[in-house]
Amino acid sequence: MVDVVDLRSDTVTRPTAGMREAMAAAEVGDDVYGEDPTVNALEAEVAALFGHEAALFAPTGSMANQIALQLVVPPGDELLCDADAHVVTYEIGAAAAYGGISSRTWPAAGADLDPGVVAGMVRQDGYFAVPTRAIAVEQPHNRGGGGVIPLATLRELRRVADADGLALHCDGARIWHAHVADRVPLAEYGALFDTLSVCLSKGLGAPVGSLVVGSAERIGRARTIRKRMGGGMRQAGVLAAAGRYALAHHVDRLADDHAKAARLAEALAPFGVLASPVRTNLVPLDLTKTELDARGLAAAARAEGVLISVLGPRLARLVTHLDSDDAAIDRAATVLTSILRR
Amino acid sequence: MVDVVDLRSDTVTRPTAGMREAMAAAEVGDDVYGEDPTVNALEAEVAALFGHEAALFAPTGSMANQIALQLVVPPGDELLCDADAHVVTYEIGAAAAYGGISSRTWPAAGADLDPGVVAGMVRQDGYFAVPTRAIAVEQPHNRGGGGVIPLATLRELRRVADADGLALHCDGARIWHAHVADRVPLAEYGALFDTLSVCLSKGLGAPVGSLVVGSAERIGRARTIRKRMGGGMRQAGVLAAAGRYALAHHVDRLADDHAKAARLAEALAPFGVLASPVRTNLVPLDLTKTELDARGLAAAARAEGVLISVLGPRLARLVTHLDSDDAAIDRAATVLTSILRR
Amino acid sequence: MVDVVDLRSDTVTRPTAGMREAMAAAEVGDDVYGEDPTVNALEAEVAALFGHEAALFAPTGSMANQIALQLVVPPGDELLCDADAHVVTYEIGAAAAYGGISSRTWPAAGADLDPGVVAGMVRQDGYFAVPTRAIAVEQPHNRGGGGVIPLATLRELRRVADADGLALHCDGARIWHAHVADRVPLAEYGALFDTLSVCLSKGLGAPVGSLVVGSAERIGRARTIRKRMGGGMRQAGVLAAAGRYALAHHVDRLADDHAKAARLAEALAPFGVLASPVRTNLVPLDLTKTELDARGLAAAARAEGVLISVLGPRLARLVTHLDSDDAAIDRAATVLTSILRR
Amino acid sequence: MVDVVDLRSDTVTRPTAGMREAMAAAEVGDDVYGEDPTVNALEAEVAALFGHEAALFAPTGSMANQIALQLVVPPGDELLCDADAHVVTYEIGAAAAYGGISSRTWPAAGADLDPGVVAGMVRQDGYFAVPTRAIAVEQPHNRGGGGVIPLATLRELRRVADADGLALHCDGARIWHAHVADRVPLAEYGALFDTLSVCLSKGLGAPVGSLVVGSAERIGRARTIRKRMGGGMRQAGVLAAAGRYALAHHVDRLADDHAKAARLAEALAPFGVLASPVRTNLVPLDLTKTELDARGLAAAARAEGVLISVLGPRLARLVTHLDSDDAAIDRAATVLTSILRR
Repeated sequence: MVDVVDLRSDTVTRPTAGMREAMAAAEVGDDVYGEDPTVNALEAEVAALFGHEAALFAPTGSMANQIALQLVVPPGDELLCDADAHVVTYEIGAAAAYGGISSRTWPAAGADLDPGVVAGMVRQDGYFAVPTRAIAVEQPHNRGGGGVIPLATLRELRRVADADGLALHCDGARIWHAHVADRVPLAEYGALFDTLSVCLSKGLGAPVGSLVVGSAERIGRARTIRKRMGGGMRQAGVLAAAGRYALAHHVDRLADDHAKAARLAEALAPFGVLASPVRTNLVPLDLTKTELDARGLAAAARAEGVLISVLGPRLARLVTHLDSDDAAIDRAATVLTSILRR
Repeated sequence: MVDVVDLRSDTVTRPTAGMREAMAAAEVGDDVYGEDPTVNALEAEVAALFGHEAALFAPTGSMANQIALQLVVPPGDELLCDADAHVVTYEIGAAAAYGGISSRTWPAAGADLDPGVVAGMVRQDGYFAVPTRAIAVEQPHNRGGGGVIPLATLRELRRVADADGLALHCDGARIWHAHVADRVPLAEYGALFDTLSVCLSKGLGAPVGSLVVGSAERIGRARTIRKRMGGGMRQAGVLAAAGRYALAHHVDRLADDHAKAARLAEALAPFGVLASPVRTNLVPLDLTKTELDARGLAAAARAEGVLISVLGPRLARLVTHLDSDDAAIDRAATVLTSILRR
Repeated sequence: MVDVVDLRSDTVTRPTAGMREAMAAAEVGDDVYGEDPTVNALEAEVAALFGHEAALFAPTGSMANQIALQLVVPPGDELLCDADAHVVTYEIGAAAAYGGISSRTWPAAGADLDPGVVAGMVRQDGYFAVPTRAIAVEQPHNRGGGGVIPLATLRELRRVADADGLALHCDGARIWHAHVADRVPLAEYGALFDTLSVCLSKGLGAPVGSLVVGSAERIGRARTIRKRMGGGMRQAGVLAAAGRYALAHHVDRLADDHAKAARLAEALAPFGVLASPVRTNLVPLDLTKTELDARGLAAAARAEGVLISVLGPRLARLVTHLDSDDAAIDRAATVLTSILRR
Repeated sequence: MVDVVDLRSDTVTRPTAGMREAMAAAEVGDDVYGEDPTVNALEAEVAALFGHEAALFAPTGSMANQIALQLVVPPGDELLCDADAHVVTYEIGAAAAYGGISSRTWPAAGADLDPGVVAGMVRQDGYFAVPTRAIAVEQPHNRGGGGVIPLATLRELRRVADADGLALHCDGARIWHAHVADRVPLAEYGALFDTLSVCLSKGLGAPVGSLVVGSAERIGRARTIRKRMGGGMRQAGVLAAAGRYALAHHVDRLADDHAKAARLAEALAPFGVLASPVRTNLVPLDLTKTELDARGLAAAARAEGVLISVLGPRLARLVTHLDSDDAAIDRAATVLTSILRR
């Protein structure tokens, strides 16, 4: 696939030479026994980054989110989240199917989350009505076009959660992007949430791996839930080594991906297709003002060697990443603008 | 409690003398074996009313709804409904906890449901995203103040469901009220929905019992689900007899309850507390423009022998019913207006 | 069905005139609000009989069992029971499907339960292995031919449970029969178990209803679980009245049913078909030494107006009860012996 | 841990230099999109080995088993397995908690499985009784001391399954050992089962990874279930490369591990502690005839640098593997016999 520019997702990145070297050299042990030194180091490192007591390595972001949700919402109780949240969209119903978690959603708002709307949805009963136990946000917001929720909004949401004794979970799969875009220290995000999930295999470029972050008590229980979910891997240090490498080398460079996304956005803006302002490495395209649908655009682009994602009938998405260099971005811009121009 | 006027809910009604007589005389059998003639007659009767092939008796409206949802949404797949729907509010998370059903909700709209908003939430994937399988509406809408969704809206929603091959479920706990208020034949409602739940123990005054209505195939599966839910009662004919009596004697008289609710609404309207126009037997009170909260109002009213429901911090509800005669309504109006006047 | 002798189950009994009178006269209220005086009286009465703090009315024995299991075993943890137990046979997988309860079973032993075998199955880990949380027994044992577990065995089992901090649940659907057969006070049974379910609509002849018995704390939680299961009925006092009547009039008379079962057993014994000694009102037939299978025997008997149950390919069951008088028993004995004689 | 001889499990092995090289050189892609060439090659290879249409890579053996069980048993239906099976012991209740799968177990029999006992447990109803849908066996059997179920037994079990239309699942985590010990071609095992799980990170020495094997239709559905379980990894080719290396280099050498286990067994036999004959790489110790309990033996051995597993109060286990050379085995034998001699 030499010629293809793949902007479907930042999950498509392949490990770099340096990362592969780190993996090949990783010291490992049996992580089900808690004896993989590289996994343990990664967990300690990530916990420290967010100012939390502990963290747990998991094979995917979906599992990290679901472990966290099972930690904070007992079966039959309620989670509130955005109608477009990853946890109720791309995790195949796991919260309900496996966690027994009931969900109500606020209207898809991306980064323009209104804590007042959330506050109005909280229910407290427990006998007549299902009690709300947790609120989940996504930072930045994937289907929300990579928008970054302002710190002030999150603080207000924390107050909403505290007022009713709710847990606040952050699906921080791409929180590194919010950190780089808004220059908010990770520990500042950490302080706002009871649990976070963070991903190493999206923008950071590791092949596999996410972590759940939280209190020692919660992460202790998380180890059992991870085993029940089938996520108790053995010599996971070979993956954790890639994650540690990614944390050391691939966080700051996300600014480049953001710049590339901005460049793409600039090229596409004249066609009136930007679904929302580009803040991170996601470029969301809303085609309702064009004569194209998302599948049509994706097919036309694919025919010219550019891959993009279809998120809905008229909604498409481009994602810049480690493996999309400047030439690739230029080519994608040329291909897409020429299709839109037709 | 001779002196108390109980307007908390129409679930509080007690069986009349005629109904008790019907129960005492009921011919019964073992309904787990399908041999209770009174249950069988009631099921046939209700199926016919809605123009469906079959119906199944269940101990409660919650169980009838949950059986229906388990029929139309496989574990892990998705249900769309109103954020204030009974099925995600008052059934204690059963859809997720027992059915594994994932839910996303449109903003609480009561009867002012916008089919376009619902259409925009439907997802079809199944591998990347959780697929929507069903839409549930509530007719009339309990937390929506007893509002009645217009037939045109329901027809539009049926088209939305058909466009994506979704099932459409009606939580028709109080559908008799919509039928009486809008003079829509029950069969016309029946034709719009794949499954309905209807309740005999609310406005109709039976002590216990609801039914699920649907195709013969679905109701066949429903019998097994009912048994799994613990709803396979034996000589249920004693309850079904009350239901048959209620259908014969208590449907048309709902117009009286609606008139009583309208009278209450008229008395309270000057205080700016009506949450929405009163269409059926529910009078929803929104206290945000007063200095009272719902608990305060309920406590003050209780002190003077009038019971009302608290639905939220500033949201209260009055319900008229078989056991609330004109004098009771007058007394409730006097008590509540005097409290609001303070 | 004037001529039919129905020995399929004691669930087929119809309410007597006295019971119907009690139902028709029952004082009722809304039991979801905890305001049905007859339900409250029944719950207090049953709790007192077993020397427990509280009890909760439920529409069926299956729901009563499942509520109890959900009280004592968290989702994902383990229940031990007999391989032929009602809770893993006739409740359609509800413990796993709704409670998420993992089960391992000891070899079907009926009343010949060996506490040592149970003790050997208990697991305590929680991280590597799923921890055992509860043991369930059935007294008397339905598929175990109505056998009564000796008090000494139950006491030994209590010690097994205590040694590992496990809860002990009794599926006491027919515990009245054990009480009558072995003259063990109900409170003595009550003292041995953390939770019990007891049924009013089997041998006791009420049309509908069971109860969960336990501590005030557990029964408090049980009210919410019952609502989630769809078991929160409204004017359930009409059913509870039948239950109270049954407790007052139909317990001691179970000795008659036992005598009738013994008479049947005596007639059938010469054919070598008794699966186990008859202790209560169940007569289990093991046809492996005959040329008949259970379906064949049932069909032949039905052709002559006698109904019996098929429990397995060569396993059938007769049950004596309130509605099977001496003439019926004689006729059943005649019909069955003539079939077996062929 | 230079000096430690770790015989707790074959999961503790660390990737060899050759394996690490293969991982470092692996061609990878995004496996959620089905585009990882190394994963695809491994899946095709394993499917072919067992003569099945397809296979799916999963992060753990637990997930592979649970995916398979969810494929063959609908929620609420029943699985039969050994009371000591991994699927109901070491997977933390996932079958019930996540799959809603009800289980009954035959008495722990290890490799001495009696198909007649299993046949006697099957239930077919579906309305009165929960229907059996699948039987799971473990080959070789972990808690059964690594015993290998004879081919004749498995064939008989296949007939039992076919007679009732049941699926037959093989937890083949260590099936390579059975293949080597009994010289049964993998395809012969494959032909007997509807689904199999096989593990690369136990005896085969890969750091991470298992596969589910089955029909194309089932594996298609398995991809969605894997995503719901949180097992949809991205560049999983780095792990699959290790697995392919293991298949190429580490299957035949299992005979060495078996020989080492036999040597250990020979040393320990005189103490009467062998729980069952040693057939593969597991050496199960039953300490009931000694004065030691399993924790005591493990602690004493650990004090002298030998690690073993505790499986029960008097049950311990040694496992030989890739990282336990002859010197290690000699040392373990010396340490353990000296403890047992005391």
